[in-house]
Amino acid sequence: MRALRKMQPARGLSFETATVPGIAPTDVLVRVKTASICGTDLHIYGWDRWSQGRIKPPVTLGHEFCGVVDRVGDEVTAVRVGDFVSAEMHVNCGHCHQCRVGEAHICQNLRIIGIDQDGAFAEFVKIPASNIIKLDPSIPEHYGAILDPLGNAVHTVLAGAIAGRTVLVTGCGPIGLMSIAVAKACGSSTVFATETNEQRRVMAKRMGADVVLNPAAEDAVKKILAETDSTGVDVLLEMSGHPGAIDDGFKALRMGGTAALLGIPSRAISFDLSNHVIFKGATVLGINGRRMFETWYQMEELLLSGRLELDEIVTHQIPFADFAKGFALMQSGEGIKIVMNVAD
Amino acid sequence: MRALRKMQPARGLSFETATVPGIAPTDVLVRVKTASICGTDLHIYGWDRWSQGRIKPPVTLGHEFCGVVDRVGDEVTAVRVGDFVSAEMHVNCGHCHQCRVGEAHICQNLRIIGIDQDGAFAEFVKIPASNIIKLDPSIPEHYGAILDPLGNAVHTVLAGAIAGRTVLVTGCGPIGLMSIAVAKACGSSTVFATETNEQRRVMAKRMGADVVLNPAAEDAVKKILAETDSTGVDVLLEMSGHPGAIDDGFKALRMGGTAALLGIPSRAISFDLSNHVIFKGATVLGINGRRMFETWYQMEELLLSGRLELDEIVTHQIPFADFAKGFALMQSGEGIKIVMNVAD
Amino acid sequence: MRALRKMQPARGLSFETATVPGIAPTDVLVRVKTASICGTDLHIYGWDRWSQGRIKPPVTLGHEFCGVVDRVGDEVTAVRVGDFVSAEMHVNCGHCHQCRVGEAHICQNLRIIGIDQDGAFAEFVKIPASNIIKLDPSIPEHYGAILDPLGNAVHTVLAGAIAGRTVLVTGCGPIGLMSIAVAKACGSSTVFATETNEQRRVMAKRMGADVVLNPAAEDAVKKILAETDSTGVDVLLEMSGHPGAIDDGFKALRMGGTAALLGIPSRAISFDLSNHVIFKGATVLGINGRRMFETWYQMEELLLSGRLELDEIVTHQIPFADFAKGFALMQSGEGIKIVMNVAD
Amino acid sequence: MRALRKMQPARGLSFETATVPGIAPTDVLVRVKTASICGTDLHIYGWDRWSQGRIKPPVTLGHEFCGVVDRVGDEVTAVRVGDFVSAEMHVNCGHCHQCRVGEAHICQNLRIIGIDQDGAFAEFVKIPASNIIKLDPSIPEHYGAILDPLGNAVHTVLAGAIAGRTVLVTGCGPIGLMSIAVAKACGSSTVFATETNEQRRVMAKRMGADVVLNPAAEDAVKKILAETDSTGVDVLLEMSGHPGAIDDGFKALRMGGTAALLGIPSRAISFDLSNHVIFKGATVLGINGRRMFETWYQMEELLLSGRLELDEIVTHQIPFADFAKGFALMQSGEGIKIVMNVAD
Repeated sequence: MRALRKMQPARGLSFETATVPGIAPTDVLVRVKTASICGTDLHIYGWDRWSQGRIKPPVTLGHEFCGVVDRVGDEVTAVRVGDFVSAEMHVNCGHCHQCRVGEAHICQNLRIIGIDQDGAFAEFVKIPASNIIKLDPSIPEHYGAILDPLGNAVHTVLAGAIAGRTVLVTGCGPIGLMSIAVAKACGSSTVFATETNEQRRVMAKRMGADVVLNPAAEDAVKKILAETDSTGVDVLLEMSGHPGAIDDGFKALRMGGTAALLGIPSRAISFDLSNHVIFKGATVLGINGRRMFETWYQMEELLLSGRLELDEIVTHQIPFADFAKGFALMQSGEGIKIVMNVAD
Repeated sequence: MRALRKMQPARGLSFETATVPGIAPTDVLVRVKTASICGTDLHIYGWDRWSQGRIKPPVTLGHEFCGVVDRVGDEVTAVRVGDFVSAEMHVNCGHCHQCRVGEAHICQNLRIIGIDQDGAFAEFVKIPASNIIKLDPSIPEHYGAILDPLGNAVHTVLAGAIAGRTVLVTGCGPIGLMSIAVAKACGSSTVFATETNEQRRVMAKRMGADVVLNPAAEDAVKKILAETDSTGVDVLLEMSGHPGAIDDGFKALRMGGTAALLGIPSRAISFDLSNHVIFKGATVLGINGRRMFETWYQMEELLLSGRLELDEIVTHQIPFADFAKGFALMQSGEGIKIVMNVAD
Repeated sequence: MRALRKMQPARGLSFETATVPGIAPTDVLVRVKTASICGTDLHIYGWDRWSQGRIKPPVTLGHEFCGVVDRVGDEVTAVRVGDFVSAEMHVNCGHCHQCRVGEAHICQNLRIIGIDQDGAFAEFVKIPASNIIKLDPSIPEHYGAILDPLGNAVHTVLAGAIAGRTVLVTGCGPIGLMSIAVAKACGSSTVFATETNEQRRVMAKRMGADVVLNPAAEDAVKKILAETDSTGVDVLLEMSGHPGAIDDGFKALRMGGTAALLGIPSRAISFDLSNHVIFKGATVLGINGRRMFETWYQMEELLLSGRLELDEIVTHQIPFADFAKGFALMQSGEGIKIVMNVAD
Repeated sequence: MRALRKMQPARGLSFETATVPGIAPTDVLVRVKTASICGTDLHIYGWDRWSQGRIKPPVTLGHEFCGVVDRVGDEVTAVRVGDFVSAEMHVNCGHCHQCRVGEAHICQNLRIIGIDQDGAFAEFVKIPASNIIKLDPSIPEHYGAILDPLGNAVHTVLAGAIAGRTVLVTGCGPIGLMSIAVAKACGSSTVFATETNEQRRVMAKRMGADVVLNPAAEDAVKKILAETDSTGVDVLLEMSGHPGAIDDGFKALRMGGTAALLGIPSRAISFDLSNHVIFKGATVLGINGRRMFETWYQMEELLLSGRLELDEIVTHQIPFADFAKGFALMQSGEGIKIVMNVAD
């Protein structure tokens, strides 16, 4: 089968012919329909420091996808051949403390399919049956390919109360943009968004943000306080990992507000814990992955409710063979989400 | 001033000339713009058993309204003459256990303006400044008149998680109908509604219910289970107070689901606590009034978000002088919410 | 091996010679050290209506136990031969909605070891590795035998906030008594208990209840209100399943209080939903089993904290061979928890 | 009356003769029995930078106290002459967003009695009736004097779940020590504590800490991980405000754990948000003051439960006239809590 693989510990990826994976009794083999390129895939392509420490070539990339079940292991009962599915690609150990108290998404021994073992940038991918998510057939395939990052957005937005609340999204990359749409669909009132890239600010507006600010050109904190009667926003959704945005975000958060943090600063930052958290009586929530599997149910239901519109975010759909173009579109920032049609 | 009053311990209400209320240093006098007729007003009009035990004539009715501040007491600083306002008409004592732990809506010594003292079916109404709710001027006056019942709906819907969840609303009176709209605006997925009255079923559909059932004509529980993969709904919003609807509601609730109860059964009912609550691992929430004043903030923000559309529910707007027609429309079931223009 | 089994669909149990169970690759074989008799075992012994519908003889009873791991299946990595263990005997399916959203204790397809398949009243018992709970070796074996009901108590007490709260326990059977001790260990203030049996009232006092009342001889509700400044208790832990106790419990619960219900009424009861739940703004929590496996961690930590003293509750320790005496002690009410030494 | 006052914008305090405060209709005049010296009082005494910006001499200090009601204003109904009381000295505005949604402890316009206006280091202190806390007469006066910091401890400990959980307290000043005792009384299991001062480590052990570590002399994080099966603690209670202790605390916190922060770093610190919060899926809670007035109820109930023993913490009880000695004992670190007998 065709597969997009990292063959050497160096920059680049290549289209290879690989063997269709064999499956164990509790596994499922999925024929991939569509797959989407994640920022993490770019890092691995570019072979940055993090990749050098984590990735062991050769390995097939790809952890955002949907497809149709092709074969199931002997002990699999809850998944059937022909099911339209996606999958949670974080595979938990099942026996650490976190796994046993319902926090499998922060398992101490987490492995990621498409990072630590062969992934979904291939005609077929092997997945443990317990990680398979059956999808309603009415969900379109280009949405099926982006459920992994959408799940990050849903996990972040629904980590605290959101209905009837004012919200600030700092950073309008793909997940930030999705968060805007999710927050609006879940009853948030005024949504502020900050972003330095103009194209993304335009997109933020389209996703439903009420007030979009460029912190490089204006005093975003001051404007947000002015629009909220000097109180600040109820909820901060931090999607940038950028120290300045984090600082602004907490300054714009009201006393007693909730901050859900998904963006990853690349190192320790200078942080005003006293004013941002303690005096403020804030609640700060670190967000990682998707809750297994509550987030998936919430996400599917939100999609089926018809109030979550994400078409704008899938800026490009390309043939699998054009993967290099897809990576280039991501690199340039021109693409938000690129969906590859793997099955064609 | 003109006022709609209960003058005698007997059926009926009358239009009277009353003195404009004097205000204490911590009170506010509001010139009423619009007011809406509550089911409770019907009970008092009809002088039912409950009314006979509670109401002490003479008293001016009316607890759903909005208006403009006409005068403020000497110690009032947070409300100004000219402010567009509504008010929480439940007045709490401030010093019982519940008041002191943030549960003022279930104060042990609650008094209700328009029930226990003169209310808002009058040109002017006196309100303690701390119960005044300032409204954004963009909120239309016919919405301002129905915030009290809308607050009941918002309190019920937001008592538990709602985004990405399936919901059943049992009973589509005014608050049930509002609950459908609020649940959809807050990201609920499939909303089922049950109601025996045809006009209200039509309205339920208009408010956004996905599946509307007539339990008098079909097996509603069976249909709901069929549509939810035999699992049942995540959330029950009980708005009828009817024993059969309550029983059906709990039967259709999934294991581990949440039931928020606002409808009031008129007496003790036969209830299958074992199967409905205990084995089911259900969470049951009794709902009373509106949280002071969190519910009001949530409600205003939901209205300002533009995703909560309630125009259909205000079936009639009439002059204050035509109050008798309004009460008749309510009695017949033809009116859902009747708003009286008091200021004209 | 020796096993205590139900051989016929009729009253009684018998000591049989049975084959040591074979184990699958994901199973564990445990050599039982101690086991305790549950009220459910009495029902099965007596062959009541419920048993007739549920139990399929022949089957070995017993679901409260501890022991030492004797053998593990080929795929088991997290449990080792020689580990001191107990087990969650509710076996969940892993793929229903509840299992996938972290509510495995109310799995739609739950099977119980010792009820639906051979249990722990035997020298050896087979358990899926994922249901095994490793115990700290410092936990005594007579405690290890009663973790199943203790887990019910811990689940109930910790279902809502308990520290610094007044509590009423209605019904002082084994789990009610354990709940008193758990509530006190978790910082509850005044604990009231109601019970008609004198021996159990004495025991309730020993477990730490501050005020123990006999509802058959005194007006328990009135006394509780008098002792709580007419406010009522913050928390009701319902352990009796008795309609009168349930009614009293809710009458004594404060406005805004929390009721956790574990006792099972045998049929639908007359219940004043309006006054007990709705007007009261109460939160009612149905409790079933133990949370998998958070309750087990909480329970073990509470035992290790040294503040949870349960010796009094294990009224008798007897040889396995004397099981008939144990069942008789339970039947007469003389025994609270009877622990059988299976390994001797 | 005698009063301990700051008369000049400079180092020092002096014993003055002051007029007994007059009271408004909603105020209460309390005859002070005992009062305790807070670390904040030391800062004001020393006239540090913070004091220079906040304190407007002349002002009477003192915000930790208890006493007996001497006189009540005309409109006061819930407090009576002769009541044994303490008071929440944070006075909220009542009309900001936070006050109106039940978060009065983080009011936008908070004023503190004993900081912003005359306090309780005097024979009489004036308090708004709504801030008065009635105390059970069985609570001893030296406990009554330390309820303000005890409330900080109770607020912090009960901000998240604590029963059956492992805990780390970083920093064993007065509130850290109280937190240890509160955590144990509320069912925490192993409590770790870190502290560089030897006397305080001894005290931590006496308050119930299971493992007390000196981070200046040993690798505290490593030891905590070793004792928790490499998982880390469930709960971090940060009481030091020290950057190193904060860093260690988060390193020792388990994935998915909860950190409640009360200690105040004096400036922005270097903080590893990615590893400490985001990847960890942690919940971080900023703690400020005491919840009005839920914390006070919890605190009183915990004291009345008899499981919270704090005598060791009140290291010295001195006459009011010896205040200088009290401040010196605090300054030297020899005193933990110094209670002054004001009434003698």
